[in-house]
Amino acid sequence: MTLSSFLPLPGMPLLPPLLATTEADTGPIILSGVLLSLVIIYLSSRIGGNIARKLDFPPVLGELVAGVLVGVSALHLIIFPENGLTATDSYLMDFLQLINGMDKEATLAVFDAQSEVVSVLAELGVIVLLFEIGLESDIRQLKEVGIQAIVVAVVGVAAPFAAGTAGLMLLFHTPVLPAIFAGAALTATSIGITSKVLSELGQLKSKEGQIIVGAAVIDDVLGIIVLAVVASLAKTGEIDVVNVLYLIGGATAFLIGSIALGGIFNKTFVKIFEKIDNPNNIIIPAFIFAFAMAFIGNAIHLEAILGAFTAGLVLDETDARKELDELIKPVASILVPIFFVTVGARADLTVLNPANPENRAGLLIAVFLVAVAIAGKLVTGWTVFGLPGINRAVIGVGMIPRGEVGLVFAGIGTASGILDKPLEVSIIIMVILTTFLAPPFLRIFFSKSEAIAEPETP
Amino acid sequence: MTLSSFLPLPGMPLLPPLLATTEADTGPIILSGVLLSLVIIYLSSRIGGNIARKLDFPPVLGELVAGVLVGVSALHLIIFPENGLTATDSYLMDFLQLINGMDKEATLAVFDAQSEVVSVLAELGVIVLLFEIGLESDIRQLKEVGIQAIVVAVVGVAAPFAAGTAGLMLLFHTPVLPAIFAGAALTATSIGITSKVLSELGQLKSKEGQIIVGAAVIDDVLGIIVLAVVASLAKTGEIDVVNVLYLIGGATAFLIGSIALGGIFNKTFVKIFEKIDNPNNIIIPAFIFAFAMAFIGNAIHLEAILGAFTAGLVLDETDARKELDELIKPVASILVPIFFVTVGARADLTVLNPANPENRAGLLIAVFLVAVAIAGKLVTGWTVFGLPGINRAVIGVGMIPRGEVGLVFAGIGTASGILDKPLEVSIIIMVILTTFLAPPFLRIFFSKSEAIAEPETP
Repeated sequence: MTLSSFLPLPGMPLLPPLLATTEADTGPIILSGVLLSLVIIYLSSRIGGNIARKLDFPPVLGELVAGVLVGVSALHLIIFPENGLTATDSYLMDFLQLINGMDKEATLAVFDAQSEVVSVLAELGVIVLLFEIGLESDIRQLKEVGIQAIVVAVVGVAAPFAAGTAGLMLLFHTPVLPAIFAGAALTATSIGITSKVLSELGQLKSKEGQIIVGAAVIDDVLGIIVLAVVASLAKTGEIDVVNVLYLIGGATAFLIGSIALGGIFNKTFVKIFEKIDNPNNIIIPAFIFAFAMAFIGNAIHLEAILGAFTAGLVLDETDARKELDELIKPVASILVPIFFVTVGARADLTVLNPANPENRAGLLIAVFLVAVAIAGKLVTGWTVFGLPGINRAVIGVGMIPRGEVGLVFAGIGTASGILDKPLEVSIIIMVILTTFLAPPFLRIFFSKSEAIAEPETP
Repeated sequence: MTLSSFLPLPGMPLLPPLLATTEADTGPIILSGVLLSLVIIYLSSRIGGNIARKLDFPPVLGELVAGVLVGVSALHLIIFPENGLTATDSYLMDFLQLINGMDKEATLAVFDAQSEVVSVLAELGVIVLLFEIGLESDIRQLKEVGIQAIVVAVVGVAAPFAAGTAGLMLLFHTPVLPAIFAGAALTATSIGITSKVLSELGQLKSKEGQIIVGAAVIDDVLGIIVLAVVASLAKTGEIDVVNVLYLIGGATAFLIGSIALGGIFNKTFVKIFEKIDNPNNIIIPAFIFAFAMAFIGNAIHLEAILGAFTAGLVLDETDARKELDELIKPVASILVPIFFVTVGARADLTVLNPANPENRAGLLIAVFLVAVAIAGKLVTGWTVFGLPGINRAVIGVGMIPRGEVGLVFAGIGTASGILDKPLEVSIIIMVILTTFLAPPFLRIFFSKSEAIAEPETP
């Protein structure tokens, strides 16, 4: 029997099919919904990834596009209760309702619960991805390019923020607060997508790759700080200095502290677990460490993925790394596609439709924001100093994809009434386009590089 | 940024720590709760498993006991919203509430959501476990012992059912309907625990192991049918013949049909996916198949784990099996402990406390039910015919653990007013004791067998 049947409920299995199911009996149906969602996610990610590979695009782009196809923009199979969507918008829920004869409340409850589960699975996916990226990163090389990564991150936050805010005010006569808000939405690079493409191209350990990953981690932190500043500005009209200092201090202490301590800790860690266990069971101790670090990252109001990345960096220095690398791959290949497909599934491409007059004003601003978003990150490549022969275009392009931080800005800005509909739409378009444009261009610029290495995985 | 930050909510990360968090901002806290739960589950399963191994008990017993320690009976870290428990009973939620400054509604919402996620992860764990068991089972050998497995299953359902019902009526003067209900609760073996112990002992492919696994699958189906019969009897006073026939027909068609079709299908399946993909990416197609079969099993009101087991049996015959076996191990080692620890965590051992007068009447009946539960399955070993030298005690002991089906009976019986408190408590005690007693005894009887093989994993 399934675990949910533990609940002392007059259970589902008793009911003949197509009889009414009420809210109390939803346990097995939630499982059904999750299983069906996973089947759809895996099928579409696999098909999308393979088509992309055949067309010589990065597979992750195919997974994103496949997500768009099954998501809110097209097939309405994988959707989430956000932006006013409910169970009735989901064809998957229609199907579950049909085969289980659920009433309306039961359907809503199942939809919310299974969406929550799929969301958390996706988050675990990006946590495992960043843990893997951390494991594959070389902490010594990351330290070598540390100064360059910091410069790239700072310029990559400052340039689009300044250009975006100023441009909106001068060209579109946007008031100062929404202009600052939209400018801030341009700051943070989405590390998940870039790092996955780098990994697919076998370029994660190249100097360019390490600068991009390092800078993306730093600018993710910077993005959170900018978010805190701008949001407190929006809420109260002034900047909550204590909170901002807390975030800056916390982030610095967390990153530097865990890497510094990690150097001492990781050897003890592996020894303890090797003593009480046979060595090929290293995966559970590794996940305990990764999830604990992710929890701490999340709990101190930073990011779970920062914690996971740091955990990977620390364990990278242990002897068990090679083994761990192999063991994590199957787990990652099960969890990571959930992240990319749901990113695509959540992207609402209907905002690109110019037939809707509400979108038209947004499209014009969007053209400007996309241009600033691309240019503002591209220039970062030319700030890299002291590394002759570095592929500057690759670094700039690698920093282009914006993701969740931009969408959070759009969401908060709209909820607080600061952003009007055109500005909100244009931020969403900016996120979608930078996300989808970066992977193919990253590939093109890498193949132009003379120093191209053989891909790690064919 | 985390995926949940996609939601256009005035997000958590903005808040200084220890300020109020309301219900709308719970996304990142749910993730925190899940991460912390997983850390606790992994730590306790690892420590419990290792202590059990040192004491020469099956590791899974250690995981169950570790689950009891972190669960509702002791530390209250991993608990679920059932049997009247809420967020205020969970020390994990107390901790999350403290560090995030959540109000009461937010805490309740986070508790429900994270419990749902952990429950589904546990269900995915037992699905992956049964998929693995199916892969490790040999369909040819299973067919060879098919008749014996059917006899073991039928006797193992009929004997405890008849003895339990008759004994309750004669010895305890229980009325007929509750006696039938309690008797029915004794029928179904918990396949998850037995198959895991068999796998740990390296005995899954022995004749005994294959008979136990085959019989446990069949008696799981029989248990569901008995449940349908008894529950419709309880609800309406008569048996819903259509539903029962539907279940019998559905189960038979599903098991036989999928195995028969699988023989044709699996070769095509592997070929299709090998063509569009590189061969070591076989894990995603395999999971698509396993989850699709689990969905079908669940959707036709059977069991998700039956579908997963059948999927494993079918893919067992493909060339990719060996490779798949290796790739699934890390995934299983991440998901399966969640199942066993939560089984332990949900087991409320306070019903064993004789200081509570409510429990005393139950304890006496429980002694009887446990005896019948053990004897009724032990005899099945002596029904095996035509296999000289078979270890009959091992087969009997392997069928002893009851699990979720028994608890479902207890829950439904109580909810419908058929079972009084002592009978309910005694069923729960029966489930707990058979679950915890079987693993060590299975090990003892296997080591008494002359034909003991070297364990697969030390």
